[in-house]
Amino acid sequence: MEAARARQSELTKPEGSLGRLEELSIQVAGIEGQIIAGFEHKAIITMAADHGVVKEGVTLYPQEVTAQMVANFLNGGAGINVLASFIGARVVVVDMGTASDIPPNSGLICRKIARGTKNMTEQAAMTPSQAVEAIEEGIEIVEDEISRGLDIVGTGDMGIGNTTASSAICATITGESVKKVAGRGEGLGNEQMDYKIKIIEKALEFNKPDSQNAIDVLAKVGGFEIGGLAGVMLGAAAHHIPVVVDGFISGAAALIAAELSPELKHYLIAAHLSAERGHKILLQYLGLTPLLELDMRLGEGTGAALGMVIVEAAVKTLAEMATFDEAGVSQSLSS
Amino acid sequence: MEAARARQSELTKPEGSLGRLEELSIQVAGIEGQIIAGFEHKAIITMAADHGVVKEGVTLYPQEVTAQMVANFLNGGAGINVLASFIGARVVVVDMGTASDIPPNSGLICRKIARGTKNMTEQAAMTPSQAVEAIEEGIEIVEDEISRGLDIVGTGDMGIGNTTASSAICATITGESVKKVAGRGEGLGNEQMDYKIKIIEKALEFNKPDSQNAIDVLAKVGGFEIGGLAGVMLGAAAHHIPVVVDGFISGAAALIAAELSPELKHYLIAAHLSAERGHKILLQYLGLTPLLELDMRLGEGTGAALGMVIVEAAVKTLAEMATFDEAGVSQSLSS
Repeated sequence: MEAARARQSELTKPEGSLGRLEELSIQVAGIEGQIIAGFEHKAIITMAADHGVVKEGVTLYPQEVTAQMVANFLNGGAGINVLASFIGARVVVVDMGTASDIPPNSGLICRKIARGTKNMTEQAAMTPSQAVEAIEEGIEIVEDEISRGLDIVGTGDMGIGNTTASSAICATITGESVKKVAGRGEGLGNEQMDYKIKIIEKALEFNKPDSQNAIDVLAKVGGFEIGGLAGVMLGAAAHHIPVVVDGFISGAAALIAAELSPELKHYLIAAHLSAERGHKILLQYLGLTPLLELDMRLGEGTGAALGMVIVEAAVKTLAEMATFDEAGVSQSLSS
Repeated sequence: MEAARARQSELTKPEGSLGRLEELSIQVAGIEGQIIAGFEHKAIITMAADHGVVKEGVTLYPQEVTAQMVANFLNGGAGINVLASFIGARVVVVDMGTASDIPPNSGLICRKIARGTKNMTEQAAMTPSQAVEAIEEGIEIVEDEISRGLDIVGTGDMGIGNTTASSAICATITGESVKKVAGRGEGLGNEQMDYKIKIIEKALEFNKPDSQNAIDVLAKVGGFEIGGLAGVMLGAAAHHIPVVVDGFISGAAALIAAELSPELKHYLIAAHLSAERGHKILLQYLGLTPLLELDMRLGEGTGAALGMVIVEAAVKTLAEMATFDEAGVSQSLSS
């Protein structure tokens, strides 16, 4: 990081004039342990799972949409396919626990922990051992991707009902009220929002997750894709790979992962501020400042893909710009 | 725009969930008159010129840096070269009026109106006919680029002293005080800022530019690169090409251009909010909301290059995402 910071001050521009690009280039150099030329291998890992709590009617879309969207990912028609292809990243699609039978597909990594979580208003969403299993699968998946070549990873999610689970995680870990962290998901109206808040409050009251125990929180009110993404983050960071965190659901996974290993935060880059209400609170709790604010709330890793472009732009300016000496440009009169 | 809006609502995502990407895709479809697949030909037009007001000591860098940076652009070592290359755009470097003799170079378009403007604290920066000439050169330059192939254009600037001229333009046209719109440029300290403000106030008092007459404003307190960029914007818009506006200096050019032709605003996309103080006021006056806020203040078109990536991402999602019907994904229960 010191070498990167020193080089930034020698590049042909007023010091600090590339703003957050400079910070990012320094952070990435710290993560990688060196100043790098760019990212040859980029991936967005998009994890799908279902949520038992949808039985309570907290969503606008039917549960089948989770599996239908997985098929859409595999066929290349979803938002994340378009954006990942645009930025030159591969999409790694993982079934962490959809409720449907998805036909085997060479493009799909199947790590179904169960056919969706249980309804968290009536019981824990999963067992503690399933929570650990989800995280361990995530670590394994990112390590497999590293063996294929991986210089930066983005996270993405798909799961009807997962803003409900993420709100429950966010409220528990940050200590904020459900009312403050729950958002409109795919576009709930006011009455539907009030109902969603009540359902989350009911789930928290029934389960009483221990905010000091991330596995307990994940097991009681989490989701399989959220656990998997927490594993992806921990695995990537352990291998010195920067993690571009998508929106609210990926943020909930980051909360779980950072509780398990607070050092993780230095390896995370918040791609964007989602339109989902609780996301700001979540990022503040993690001490992360989002790169983009484009009113997006699609998930899938779409925000991460755009954030990754900014990170790569930052890395390239540090690596490729000429220094004052190289270019024969006069330095500031004050320096 | 209607066709683009209709297609957005059929794509496999909750309506509105791509936020500003959706708006951008609709705006670009309106500008182009059709839904397009992407941008094959992208250019950043970076215009350089010098400013007589630097004699007053309002900058941290010596005037020679303008020409030195032009050489850096031509050698590919500047921030804009790195970012434009990264996003696949060509950089069009124009000498609109540097004070130095820049050796002829096949990569440089030389349209020197004069060797820098006059010192605007003592006289008008340029004559009215030079102001018109600068704008007309800008139109010609963008038309030349269109004949080479151009689907979207970004604007960029280089000119020691040009935040001073831009602040004077911004104060005149928006009606805000110099104190509110002047910024730290390359990084002035508090005392230097107070002095810069006094110099701008002196220039405005001496010249009394007519806020209702954009040519008068450009002539009295503007710059050759600012006039040229105003021409680029007007020429591009006239040919239905979206314009990605960089930071504060490009913004000042947009103020001039939009006064001449208010319809222009629909063709402009504000790339980012610069760290330069007056930029926010300027964008609000133009009714533009910046895409990015990364604390950048380098100019050259660096913000425009990053903004252009976001615009292209938006266009691609509209063109390439599957519809609910195509993908066999269930629509919202409420629709």
